[in-house]
Amino acid sequence: MADPTKILLDESEIPTHWYNVVADLPAPPPPPLHPATHEPIGPDDLAPLFPMALIEQEVSAERYIEIPEEVREVYELWRPSPLIRAKRLERLLDTPAKIYFKYEGVSPAGSHKPNTAVPQAYYNAAAGTKRLTTETGAGQWGSALAFAAAQFALECEVWQVAASFTQKPYRGSMIRTWGATIHSSPSDLTEAGRAILAQDPDSPGSLGIAISEAVEVAASSPDAKYALGSVLNHVLLHQTVIGEEALKQLAEVGDSPDLIVGCTGGGSNFAGLAFPFLREKMAGRMDPHVLAVEPAACPTFTKGEYRYDYGDVAGMTPLVKMHTLGHDFVPDPIHAGGLRYHGMSPLLSHMYELGLFEAEALPQSACFDAAVRFARTEGIVPAPEPTHALAAAIREAEACKETGEEKVILTALCGHGHFDMAAYDAWFAGELVDHDYPEDKVREAMARVPEIG
Amino acid sequence: MADPTKILLDESEIPTHWYNVVADLPAPPPPPLHPATHEPIGPDDLAPLFPMALIEQEVSAERYIEIPEEVREVYELWRPSPLIRAKRLERLLDTPAKIYFKYEGVSPAGSHKPNTAVPQAYYNAAAGTKRLTTETGAGQWGSALAFAAAQFALECEVWQVAASFTQKPYRGSMIRTWGATIHSSPSDLTEAGRAILAQDPDSPGSLGIAISEAVEVAASSPDAKYALGSVLNHVLLHQTVIGEEALKQLAEVGDSPDLIVGCTGGGSNFAGLAFPFLREKMAGRMDPHVLAVEPAACPTFTKGEYRYDYGDVAGMTPLVKMHTLGHDFVPDPIHAGGLRYHGMSPLLSHMYELGLFEAEALPQSACFDAAVRFARTEGIVPAPEPTHALAAAIREAEACKETGEEKVILTALCGHGHFDMAAYDAWFAGELVDHDYPEDKVREAMARVPEIG
Repeated sequence: MADPTKILLDESEIPTHWYNVVADLPAPPPPPLHPATHEPIGPDDLAPLFPMALIEQEVSAERYIEIPEEVREVYELWRPSPLIRAKRLERLLDTPAKIYFKYEGVSPAGSHKPNTAVPQAYYNAAAGTKRLTTETGAGQWGSALAFAAAQFALECEVWQVAASFTQKPYRGSMIRTWGATIHSSPSDLTEAGRAILAQDPDSPGSLGIAISEAVEVAASSPDAKYALGSVLNHVLLHQTVIGEEALKQLAEVGDSPDLIVGCTGGGSNFAGLAFPFLREKMAGRMDPHVLAVEPAACPTFTKGEYRYDYGDVAGMTPLVKMHTLGHDFVPDPIHAGGLRYHGMSPLLSHMYELGLFEAEALPQSACFDAAVRFARTEGIVPAPEPTHALAAAIREAEACKETGEEKVILTALCGHGHFDMAAYDAWFAGELVDHDYPEDKVREAMARVPEIG
Repeated sequence: MADPTKILLDESEIPTHWYNVVADLPAPPPPPLHPATHEPIGPDDLAPLFPMALIEQEVSAERYIEIPEEVREVYELWRPSPLIRAKRLERLLDTPAKIYFKYEGVSPAGSHKPNTAVPQAYYNAAAGTKRLTTETGAGQWGSALAFAAAQFALECEVWQVAASFTQKPYRGSMIRTWGATIHSSPSDLTEAGRAILAQDPDSPGSLGIAISEAVEVAASSPDAKYALGSVLNHVLLHQTVIGEEALKQLAEVGDSPDLIVGCTGGGSNFAGLAFPFLREKMAGRMDPHVLAVEPAACPTFTKGEYRYDYGDVAGMTPLVKMHTLGHDFVPDPIHAGGLRYHGMSPLLSHMYELGLFEAEALPQSACFDAAVRFARTEGIVPAPEPTHALAAAIREAEACKETGEEKVILTALCGHGHFDMAAYDAWFAGELVDHDYPEDKVREAMARVPEIG
């Protein structure tokens, strides 16, 4: 069919393999170091937290890793996800550019997170794990893991940052609906939690504290393991189903992307879309520009240092070489909670240093302006995180109107905003302010066309 | 492909026509009567509220009505919706039955409502209407109309029942995101609203009051019209895209339904699924049993009288012949807000009298029990309304386990529950009680296999 709005794949076309970009890099990423000895860590150091199959994926240099049939069967509930041509948005912008978005909000949890939650639950169940622990902020990752745990009859315990637990109760309702247990963090169930509560009984919590609680329980329980929703290599690996499908879908309509743009927090959504296209680029089969967009309030790539740092606030995790704002950096409380991480995936950080993609930071007011234009034309109300990529995509499409270029722009809409409507209320109430971004600076950021290409 | 989980249609297979079941009935439905004269009303009586194209559809006896290209273009954003085989639920139930559900939660507003909101907005825009008014309870319909109005550059004003406006603010956020205006009802913007506020400044409002406000504004503004989200013939007509697609999708996998089950409030979701199958049944091409499930707290079909009654509490609408609990009936505040209507679609009421389908009432605790089993296997967290149909479908599938019958069960999952999570909280907290339904009576209702067929 000529010129479709939605490019769908049959479920027999769900990828059979994840793509491991490490196999194609000119140099391997630097190894993680033990927090005490500062020596490279080995698989055994991670064994208390993760099953061996995931540890092997974490350090693998194999180009393709087969997706187990049991995982593909759960993916069938929503995958392949649609690739959608944003025709009505293009019409609003009056642009000759084509804008495509890969929509991951069709998953049960409403984001790309189940792409890795499902295999993580599967490998744990196969290894005899009975219970998964994790932390969650606003609840996107916690709900994805709760859903995945239900598919493999695992118990699941989620520590949610206390402030979110109170203010945004409905992700917790979803977690309970899928049969998982949710605790407000800090909790009195762990030493880490009790220590914080002893100092401050009304602590609002933080992701760092919640991680400590989930890790403590997993490390001290023989039948429990811990699961992480971004940053690590195996998480990025699992997300490559997004890009593999998008490659096929664009090929089906005879298009090749000139620009690929994704938002970055820990990096898994961006990596999932970009890695398969970067494989094609490194092999000389296509030549897209690839752009990561991060919040101006948490500018890891664009203002962070590339050095060894801890993954958590308390300094309990291995040291990883990454772009970091410092493990004690506390970003402004912007609404894109999923992007408020002080560090960046070590693998993506390494690839950024290799010059494989570019990055920029955008203020959230520019992002919500884009979000509303998108919602009023395409219908979908986006989560605050992917609006960063939408803002850059819209700016590029507007630049094409000036130049007359018929660029093909591809972005990842990694989730819907059904549980983020308070952010839209704040936007319409004029209460969304940006760290260090007065109105004229916002206009300036959005007027600037990135010097890519 | 043999045995797929999702049966998808290409967007070129979006139906080109709506199906008007009136053309195939042995007798036409009784006419609406003027509330003052009690004489049959004519098109001119409705002209202040609706554009002529919709009035013509309301009274049409044509079998097929063409869907305008502009409407199909908006439908392309999410249609055809998927038909999903609930394999993981079947496995949980250990049933030989096949359970298919047609999932309408993929629409931007998250329900089947945009199927009619879009053509209503289109015909209004084509007729020169500048502004649409409507009422909404929990907000499902109001958000669908806000989305649709944005597609045709119409202004849209929504009066939301005050209690919901305060307690469930996020549908309102969605309505604003799509550019519509929302008022708490009763408001001081209308005579109807001011009269209520004069008596009770803290009135929690009601659908009846909100209808009066929206109708008053439309009737008194030359450039405004009113839109209704269920009950009327043209609304049911627009929803038949659901059943037409499902017919094709089942044919694609070689199945024919033995049981079709849908939930009923005003009736549009049930009618949308069932009418095309009833056409096939009346023509002798298939023989499914068709079952409407309503809440025990608002048992319009099963306990209501079939007589002329008003559509609103205040008695301002035409008199229509329908199954009614009386226009002053106030149902228990159950969580399936979309099913709390004292009356029933006159067309469906007529067809029920003709014996074309059966009906039963289920208590909401049975429905939430089914909802949780569904969510934990199929991933999707359903809205409270379609859980009524899910509960009946699950009961039937469990009966098949006893009898060994390989029945094909088809239901409509008319929306997701992302904005209804408080209902799940109440369920898990044990706070969901049923009007007149103690626990043993719930068990009894669910043990009883309906004597259909």
